[in-house]
Amino acid sequence: MAKLKPRTLSGFMELLPRRQVQMERVMDTLRKTYARYGFTPLDTPLIEASEVLLAKGGGETEKQIYRFTKGDTDLSLRFDLTVPLAKYVALHQNELTFPFRRFQIGKVYRGERAQRGRFREFYQADIDVIGDGALDIINEAEIPAIIYETFSALGLKRFRIRLNNRKVLNGLFAALGLEEQAGDVMRTIDKLEKIGPEKVKAILVDDFGVPAGTADQLLELLAVEEPLEALAGWKGKDALLDKGVEELETVVKYLGAFGVPEDHYQVDLTIARGLDYYTGTVYETVMLDHPEIGSICSGGRYDNLAEYYTDKQLPGVGISIGLTRLFFVLEDQGYLNDDLLTAPADVLVLPMTEDLSPAIAAATALRQAGLRAQLYTENKKFKQKMSYAGKLGIPFVLLLGEDEINQGKVSLKNMADGVQTMCSVEEAAVEIAKTLVVGSAAAPIREPEHG
Amino acid sequence: MAKLKPRTLSGFMELLPRRQVQMERVMDTLRKTYARYGFTPLDTPLIEASEVLLAKGGGETEKQIYRFTKGDTDLSLRFDLTVPLAKYVALHQNELTFPFRRFQIGKVYRGERAQRGRFREFYQADIDVIGDGALDIINEAEIPAIIYETFSALGLKRFRIRLNNRKVLNGLFAALGLEEQAGDVMRTIDKLEKIGPEKVKAILVDDFGVPAGTADQLLELLAVEEPLEALAGWKGKDALLDKGVEELETVVKYLGAFGVPEDHYQVDLTIARGLDYYTGTVYETVMLDHPEIGSICSGGRYDNLAEYYTDKQLPGVGISIGLTRLFFVLEDQGYLNDDLLTAPADVLVLPMTEDLSPAIAAATALRQAGLRAQLYTENKKFKQKMSYAGKLGIPFVLLLGEDEINQGKVSLKNMADGVQTMCSVEEAAVEIAKTLVVGSAAAPIREPEHG
Repeated sequence: MAKLKPRTLSGFMELLPRRQVQMERVMDTLRKTYARYGFTPLDTPLIEASEVLLAKGGGETEKQIYRFTKGDTDLSLRFDLTVPLAKYVALHQNELTFPFRRFQIGKVYRGERAQRGRFREFYQADIDVIGDGALDIINEAEIPAIIYETFSALGLKRFRIRLNNRKVLNGLFAALGLEEQAGDVMRTIDKLEKIGPEKVKAILVDDFGVPAGTADQLLELLAVEEPLEALAGWKGKDALLDKGVEELETVVKYLGAFGVPEDHYQVDLTIARGLDYYTGTVYETVMLDHPEIGSICSGGRYDNLAEYYTDKQLPGVGISIGLTRLFFVLEDQGYLNDDLLTAPADVLVLPMTEDLSPAIAAATALRQAGLRAQLYTENKKFKQKMSYAGKLGIPFVLLLGEDEINQGKVSLKNMADGVQTMCSVEEAAVEIAKTLVVGSAAAPIREPEHG
Repeated sequence: MAKLKPRTLSGFMELLPRRQVQMERVMDTLRKTYARYGFTPLDTPLIEASEVLLAKGGGETEKQIYRFTKGDTDLSLRFDLTVPLAKYVALHQNELTFPFRRFQIGKVYRGERAQRGRFREFYQADIDVIGDGALDIINEAEIPAIIYETFSALGLKRFRIRLNNRKVLNGLFAALGLEEQAGDVMRTIDKLEKIGPEKVKAILVDDFGVPAGTADQLLELLAVEEPLEALAGWKGKDALLDKGVEELETVVKYLGAFGVPEDHYQVDLTIARGLDYYTGTVYETVMLDHPEIGSICSGGRYDNLAEYYTDKQLPGVGISIGLTRLFFVLEDQGYLNDDLLTAPADVLVLPMTEDLSPAIAAATALRQAGLRAQLYTENKKFKQKMSYAGKLGIPFVLLLGEDEINQGKVSLKNMADGVQTMCSVEEAAVEIAKTLVVGSAAAPIREPEHG
């Protein structure tokens, strides 16, 4: 029969088993951390009616959307988890209890130009807190704590959360007489890190008619080391600015109580986050040794989650991790912890007799003790059987020959040191579990040594 | 602004938070059970190139496939997890270690006619063991053990695994001189349970030219209580039949060693499983009190997983659970355990003072003790705050007022019995954890009482 060459589409991540286990560990860590803060898991369809998904319309992403018809229905694959959340909350608003705190880890689709490290199918890991009409500022202070706990639990150490507040920016623009150009100015200063202050000034002055002196004043303020101190001098100049500064101060005040160390966050007035929809605190997270990667976790506070679907005002705050890209970067930069136990089993059970019943019973006993036990009965040479355990990184092999069976014992071989001992299956289970406890404490990320 | 009515497509399951937590518990239980038998998790794209996904071509499902183009590429959404597995194993064959044991829980898509309890997007939960050229029969005996452990771990008690062997059926047909009509006969007896022996006989005789006496002989054998005993009389009549009987006897022999109780399995010669591709043991699983639902877990042994992609012979054995439909049925029939803790948090922390720092510190301490703690700071009346915990089923509320703060204590209220005690935050953590241990042992399924 003629064979068809198997292939996986470009831009679609498909991992080998070892890497997949590391990815699962990352997702597990996120789930556990989010759950610890009272977020409930959510799952929504990958396909939505196009009119629902594209209610907001237009925008950069519309071209990238996977859109098609099935029968008479115009369908689209979701391109983020925020629009489906808005739909979900609007649709089920009478059955939900607010504040509604949910996390969702799911695949989204964007037909971007194929490029190394860019994905067309990728996981996003989102959390959002949605209020009914109002939402306390403390939620905006809790988010950086969750970001800190999440990356710490993953094993990352050298990262920093950058905070800003959109009211501060918009208030500043108003105080500087730039209300008309606020959107353009915001999008321009968003490029500060990429293109530098001189080019930003040129764009502000040449393209958007900002007076040169005003541009200088703005850029100077954005560059100060202690923005909250500098902003104290602006008090009373604009009500929105005052409100924004107050919010930012509240958020910073509580960060310590939430346990975020001072060297892991920073108020940075240059953080704008492009999206129109943020209205309060905004967040970015950078890896200190890889700023070129950009933000690995971003989000902010918004006033209206679902204005396209409902009159109900649903303010919220949320963050998103682009998980597939993050995993790619971590692997690429050598950040994945290769000491993580990625074997499919804790112990490989090798019967050495014709009758397999004693080996089956031993494997069953090991499983009942909570271990992952794989029975290996293929017709191979002994050396090949041991090599199977070795290739998969299975840490223990349990051998069951005539001698062991007659004595009611098993032989347990530790693959790390090669030591083999004869003991009862219960003793073997204890020994394996003891060794595993040490390994299972490992985090999925281990930062490379620095010179 | 005009609002667009939010909606979810029909045939797409979208659960409310409480149900979603139950679904997550079901999936977690499957993952843990599969892992205990040495299966590694796999994740493959939901979208594949159509030529790859449809390499096998034709078939019942082709009309149901979600197929579309993006740019110049002809794409399809996966309709099962088996074809993507075949592609994966063929593509990565040199990087995998065989036998390759994987589980995958993922969404698949079939544009079926919308109907209650039928889904167009649904989870399948699959396990497969793939050998390289050969695969020991013991793997076929292990599968029913995994089915048994899986449903037992979920909390289901009244179910039975039905076993058969395709070699037995094909051997019987040969021994009866029905080799020519083997496929038609197989598909007809697959309908025995639905339409009964008389109609099956009529089809066999009228449509497929089976002599009436032969049809009677076949139907009589299929109906016996102890098929293995009855088959003993056929020994020597057909080599394939002999081989099939031997395999079936081996599988049954080891089921006891694997810990499957006798009342949970049954050799049933009427189980055919439509697919051509099975060649050895086949499985079905029925709920004893709901036979009308059909099989909730099916599969079998096959000789060639990936013949469309590679010359390498990849025999395997696998089973699949249609998880979304199963979950729907369980809910519909009242099998979901409503005592399962589905709250998003173990404890709700309620600050009663202006300064939130002590409450934040208490919530942080509870999280560090491994608990899920949610801080609630919305500007609501006390009664509404308590009602928030009640509505979400959060089992404990921790109150922090002036008194508590001055004494370095917290007030812990158990929502089940209303008892409130003042204690240290460490004591509160111990008390909460103690209560939760009892609840977390609950399985997601609880069978209704029988009359």
